[in-house]
Amino acid sequence: MELIVYLAGQIHDDWRNQLKEKADGMQLPVTFVGPMENHERSDNIGEEILGQQPNSILKDEAASKFNNLRTRILLRKSDVVIALFGEKYRQWNSAMDAATAIALNKPLILIRPASLHHALKEISEKAQVTVETPDQALAALSYIFEE
Amino acid sequence: MELIVYLAGQIHDDWRNQLKEKADGMQLPVTFVGPMENHERSDNIGEEILGQQPNSILKDEAASKFNNLRTRILLRKSDVVIALFGEKYRQWNSAMDAATAIALNKPLILIRPASLHHALKEISEKAQVTVETPDQALAALSYIFEE
Amino acid sequence: MELIVYLAGQIHDDWRNQLKEKADGMQLPVTFVGPMENHERSDNIGEEILGQQPNSILKDEAASKFNNLRTRILLRKSDVVIALFGEKYRQWNSAMDAATAIALNKPLILIRPASLHHALKEISEKAQVTVETPDQALAALSYIFEE
Amino acid sequence: MELIVYLAGQIHDDWRNQLKEKADGMQLPVTFVGPMENHERSDNIGEEILGQQPNSILKDEAASKFNNLRTRILLRKSDVVIALFGEKYRQWNSAMDAATAIALNKPLILIRPASLHHALKEISEKAQVTVETPDQALAALSYIFEE
Amino acid sequence: MELIVYLAGQIHDDWRNQLKEKADGMQLPVTFVGPMENHERSDNIGEEILGQQPNSILKDEAASKFNNLRTRILLRKSDVVIALFGEKYRQWNSAMDAATAIALNKPLILIRPASLHHALKEISEKAQVTVETPDQALAALSYIFEE
Amino acid sequence: MELIVYLAGQIHDDWRNQLKEKADGMQLPVTFVGPMENHERSDNIGEEILGQQPNSILKDEAASKFNNLRTRILLRKSDVVIALFGEKYRQWNSAMDAATAIALNKPLILIRPASLHHALKEISEKAQVTVETPDQALAALSYIFEE
Amino acid sequence: MELIVYLAGQIHDDWRNQLKEKADGMQLPVTFVGPMENHERSDNIGEEILGQQPNSILKDEAASKFNNLRTRILLRKSDVVIALFGEKYRQWNSAMDAATAIALNKPLILIRPASLHHALKEISEKAQVTVETPDQALAALSYIFEE
Amino acid sequence: MELIVYLAGQIHDDWRNQLKEKADGMQLPVTFVGPMENHERSDNIGEEILGQQPNSILKDEAASKFNNLRTRILLRKSDVVIALFGEKYRQWNSAMDAATAIALNKPLILIRPASLHHALKEISEKAQVTVETPDQALAALSYIFEE
Repeated sequence: MELIVYLAGQIHDDWRNQLKEKADGMQLPVTFVGPMENHERSDNIGEEILGQQPNSILKDEAASKFNNLRTRILLRKSDVVIALFGEKYRQWNSAMDAATAIALNKPLILIRPASLHHALKEISEKAQVTVETPDQALAALSYIFEE
Repeated sequence: MELIVYLAGQIHDDWRNQLKEKADGMQLPVTFVGPMENHERSDNIGEEILGQQPNSILKDEAASKFNNLRTRILLRKSDVVIALFGEKYRQWNSAMDAATAIALNKPLILIRPASLHHALKEISEKAQVTVETPDQALAALSYIFEE
Repeated sequence: MELIVYLAGQIHDDWRNQLKEKADGMQLPVTFVGPMENHERSDNIGEEILGQQPNSILKDEAASKFNNLRTRILLRKSDVVIALFGEKYRQWNSAMDAATAIALNKPLILIRPASLHHALKEISEKAQVTVETPDQALAALSYIFEE
Repeated sequence: MELIVYLAGQIHDDWRNQLKEKADGMQLPVTFVGPMENHERSDNIGEEILGQQPNSILKDEAASKFNNLRTRILLRKSDVVIALFGEKYRQWNSAMDAATAIALNKPLILIRPASLHHALKEISEKAQVTVETPDQALAALSYIFEE
Repeated sequence: MELIVYLAGQIHDDWRNQLKEKADGMQLPVTFVGPMENHERSDNIGEEILGQQPNSILKDEAASKFNNLRTRILLRKSDVVIALFGEKYRQWNSAMDAATAIALNKPLILIRPASLHHALKEISEKAQVTVETPDQALAALSYIFEE
Repeated sequence: MELIVYLAGQIHDDWRNQLKEKADGMQLPVTFVGPMENHERSDNIGEEILGQQPNSILKDEAASKFNNLRTRILLRKSDVVIALFGEKYRQWNSAMDAATAIALNKPLILIRPASLHHALKEISEKAQVTVETPDQALAALSYIFEE
Repeated sequence: MELIVYLAGQIHDDWRNQLKEKADGMQLPVTFVGPMENHERSDNIGEEILGQQPNSILKDEAASKFNNLRTRILLRKSDVVIALFGEKYRQWNSAMDAATAIALNKPLILIRPASLHHALKEISEKAQVTVETPDQALAALSYIFEE
Repeated sequence: MELIVYLAGQIHDDWRNQLKEKADGMQLPVTFVGPMENHERSDNIGEEILGQQPNSILKDEAASKFNNLRTRILLRKSDVVIALFGEKYRQWNSAMDAATAIALNKPLILIRPASLHHALKEISEKAQVTVETPDQALAALSYIFEE
């Protein structure tokens, strides 16, 4: 039995790759999916497919459609969602992906620093588990497969 | 035919009451529901019901449970969700309520200032309509009932 | 027991009002809902709420959002959908509303002239009943309540 | 992870084969399905299975049942739907398949020439993305798998 | 709190009226719905709405569409289904309505004479309760409201 | 807006009546429903409707069918479920009703003495809120309606 | 892409094996499932697992539980259901399986002799296609895979 | 066709391993999943992942979150659930898992000693089959695959 894990959350550092490598090392039967992590590509995808748009607002709208196409399909395919929140950004997309996971009845593993406890308390309460580091999230994933 | 409208979003100013009064003036067959708007009550509700908690983290957790109880029930009862984002706060709860509405297949009317266009572009793309003022949201509501 | 009936289809003649008057005369416990029938209002609603748009394409996009807001809410509230197709128009919106009704598992009463038989055969096959006149659709509605 | 893509829309030219060949060239992990593209076979399938029917109306009804059998099964199996509209035909079946995809919560990639913008604006608004050429649809598909 | 009760099953005797009268006498807050009980009207409804059909097969098909329109709408509106099987008829419609109720997750109260025990054992096993007389079914309904 | 509240849990003391009286005093717009509280009637209902059964096992089976008929209908009608666990009994029915509520996505308010904390920890984790007294559950209900 | 096909209907002759052999000959990518076809085994399965039952009624009840266990699991796994009705038996189980398929939104291919047209007209109207022979059902299956 | 079987119920003896070995011997195409059976690991998993908790209540809460993460994912993946109740424990988790299976519309095979008949009668009535030994449960599983 394999699980598909969607990695929601910030795309500003390398946390996904580190998580994937560790999961490989643990030989977990897991496939990871997630949003486009190349920030520039993510912002430009609308114009790259549809051609130049009249202004930056329409450029953004075009990009968001293709990003949401990707997210919708991959999120529905997944069995569990891991969402990482950091301190630097507003990360409304992360909140939206986390809430979508919850509403689709897919269990959410929330990763956030202790400092964000108050701001994220309602999301945390809806998550299946809340941890502080990607390693803890990985330990939770691993626990599902233990015999 | 009556509609139930959930008013998600910031609880730091008086926008809900203004909206309700105008809707009354227009005689729309609408019932408005929403989160607890008394911020202090919302933060303390856990301790008010369960008694003093050991620390502020557990106080927050207790409060979030009762706030989510209220939100879950009222959001499911609603036919359409209006979510207002302002510039001052991170408003992850608003993003979560908006995403929950979308995932429950309830149409979302998003209100946000033009300055938040880029940050909210993925949520906006998933909303049924995006407007900039509560009055425009009200005009959209009214349009549903026009003959 | 009351039923809500969505009247999909062309908005270029007076068939909805005629149907409603006859239903009133028969004292059927039915509430009729449907799309905006004022064609000009329907085309302009985007600009009327959001203000002037940069070009006609964006004007159309804005309008379609508010029209779909209305349709989504009312279609979900309905118990049965009546869709009328005439010979003059492409009526892709009618086809979309009819198919949405079917996919939502709401029974569809299709009204179309015999001359459209071939073009509409797949939609007709998915409809619960296909008739040729609004009076026949009304007879079908009435049959639901007969004792 | 593989995706199943349903190719809805006109069956009067060779767009599906061109799309499939290009997707093969890009090595996308995708299986394409769709309606019967042999128009004559599609019109005659009722009589070919059930034998001659009394008249052309019943011949059409019989054919539509088998065509809808195929469409229903394949559409439900798919993860994403691409629908192509051209200028020549009424294409109510394409509109019906597109709307069914939307109602089943499967993302829709709409392909239509700019000239059909106004006529298709409500369907376009419900689509996840709207593009003008099959190549752009293919770029959107490819974006889902990029790392 | 009121319940809607669908009375499926044979339409060849007066059991529905007897049940309704007794329920009235017990002042149960219940609304009864069901199929057309006038057998002749039920067989002719297709031609009465659509006009004469070419042959008896098409007459039957037309009638079944309108009968199913009625059944679909009323069955979905109901909270609980009572199905009565007697010894005289094949009553495939009753079996179909009973199975539809079960698949829709609506509790089924099955009424059948002891002599039909073997033939109906799989349906009985899926019913919520199986009784032998309409009076027993009424006692079950009444039990739901007891304080 | 009214809510229907299902009161699951032990039927061995008077907690439901006390709760109802207090809710009346607070004028909450709430209707309470629940299982048969007359224990003897609950154990005998099978024989009371169907007549004497061959042995006590079959008497139990008959009774459980009618009790489940009642529970299924009322639980589905409810918007929120309150389940009370006490120390004296095994209360598997209470656990079953609580889990059914959770699986139906209805928020659960769990009432249990602190002494049952360990034994009920998994159910508590799935509940929306866990409290220790019926008065606290009532305060939670009341919070939903506060303005 | 493979399909799972449930073969509902009478278990008194060899039609399933004939169908399977022909499907093999046509190399259709199809897996067939269905009820226990050994009639005696089907009637005795309750006692074979649970031991002797007190009387024939309880023997039947026990058997029906295990038969329904099998049917429920296999029917949900299937993509399409073929149900064959013959003239000799009441076949309420076939009607129940057919109706369950319809209510689960799985397309139904109904096979019945012309002589059963009137008795089965409501089931036929709900089927996706109705044919008279297993060979025609097989042709319909094959049409789904044609390119 | 393979089935995934969730083994709910007590974790205090070796019944799961015995069942798995016998299923292997019978070459059933079945994958078994279930809760963490190492009781100590199950009680400590919260602290093992999150670090030491302030008190035993919070230790329990942390553990229950990770145990429920595992249960939720594996229960949803399964096609059928077997739940074993023994006489020694309260086993509210078993009751919860059994009820979740029922509410998710997954068939439940209940194993319980005859002595628990009365206490478990409502759960038994909701189960698809009730047996007394794991061997009987295995015979039921095997029956699904018989040809």
